[in-house]
Amino acid sequence: MSAPLTDAALDQLFLTARTYNAWLPKEVTDEQVRRIYDLAKMGPTSANMSPMRLRFIKSPDAKARLKPFLSEGNAEKTMAAPVTAIVATDFDFYEHLPKLFPHADARSWFAGKPEAIKEHGARNGTLQGAYLIMAARSLGLDCGPMTGFDFAGVDAEFFAGTQIKANFLVNIGYGDPGTNMFGRLPRFEFDEVAEIL
Amino acid sequence: MSAPLTDAALDQLFLTARTYNAWLPKEVTDEQVRRIYDLAKMGPTSANMSPMRLRFIKSPDAKARLKPFLSEGNAEKTMAAPVTAIVATDFDFYEHLPKLFPHADARSWFAGKPEAIKEHGARNGTLQGAYLIMAARSLGLDCGPMTGFDFAGVDAEFFAGTQIKANFLVNIGYGDPGTNMFGRLPRFEFDEVAEIL
Repeated sequence: MSAPLTDAALDQLFLTARTYNAWLPKEVTDEQVRRIYDLAKMGPTSANMSPMRLRFIKSPDAKARLKPFLSEGNAEKTMAAPVTAIVATDFDFYEHLPKLFPHADARSWFAGKPEAIKEHGARNGTLQGAYLIMAARSLGLDCGPMTGFDFAGVDAEFFAGTQIKANFLVNIGYGDPGTNMFGRLPRFEFDEVAEIL
Repeated sequence: MSAPLTDAALDQLFLTARTYNAWLPKEVTDEQVRRIYDLAKMGPTSANMSPMRLRFIKSPDAKARLKPFLSEGNAEKTMAAPVTAIVATDFDFYEHLPKLFPHADARSWFAGKPEAIKEHGARNGTLQGAYLIMAARSLGLDCGPMTGFDFAGVDAEFFAGTQIKANFLVNIGYGDPGTNMFGRLPRFEFDEVAEIL
């Protein structure tokens, strides 16, 4: 059995972690990007379906491709971020289930069933996107997730000819706490949204 | 700037963590359940919308209410789990935005827009569900997430008269590695699903 992580680790992952809107001028290396994925990929998904697909926008050329699709409030900070993850979902995920979940015919649970594909793809792609945020934080990086962008535009630019659809964006780097931070917003108390039965 | 967590912490959160199908006979206290939520609630959601709602099934009476809706493969292990979280999403989440996101009229982004409500509610409720799994692991607990259950039945039993809909279930406790464990399933390599541009 495992013990709780240290208070410092809980702070880093949850309690003092923040969504950043400005970034210190410090690179995120390709090795760090790969490390984030190699942690996040181990998080659980239904039938191990692992539908998340990723594009990490890092070069000036890639930033220029992304920029036209960002909302006004997201453009400047995203162009300044060391890297921006396009977190996307492959709605052809079920074609890979014979490899990913070999002990059942899981492909047949989805093939030809668009509602099931949509529901399970979206849920599990989003779970993996959250694991990605937690993985980045666990490696000492900060995140700035966003949905303020032109989804169809990003899909056409980065995922044309596939069933891969953008889910959200995450700026990743070393957050600048001195610039453009919101005050901490309220959260629901346990008893407002939860119950032990 | 933060440093990476220790290798032991990364193991506990991601690398050696597993989905468990059997549980050691050790209680999860109400205090632990509240602690899980108090970590998970701090994770980021779009406009701080925080749509996740939770019922923690712990008593014999609550287990008896849940049991009829579990798939055959999930019933026994769930009845044996110290606690089962019903992770649900409140699709009336936007009514709370004047409190949760006071610096914009975020309620108006959703009121009367069922597609936006559905998309953003589902995405953010699932993000919070993933934070819940990571929070439980960070406190030294193990998880067994599941979607093999009668969604409409659970909604009628636990959320009647609301816009709250079940998203997934998570058994929480101290996993028994000796019973009913799958072998570790393969994950996609970075270069199969991701690209640094």
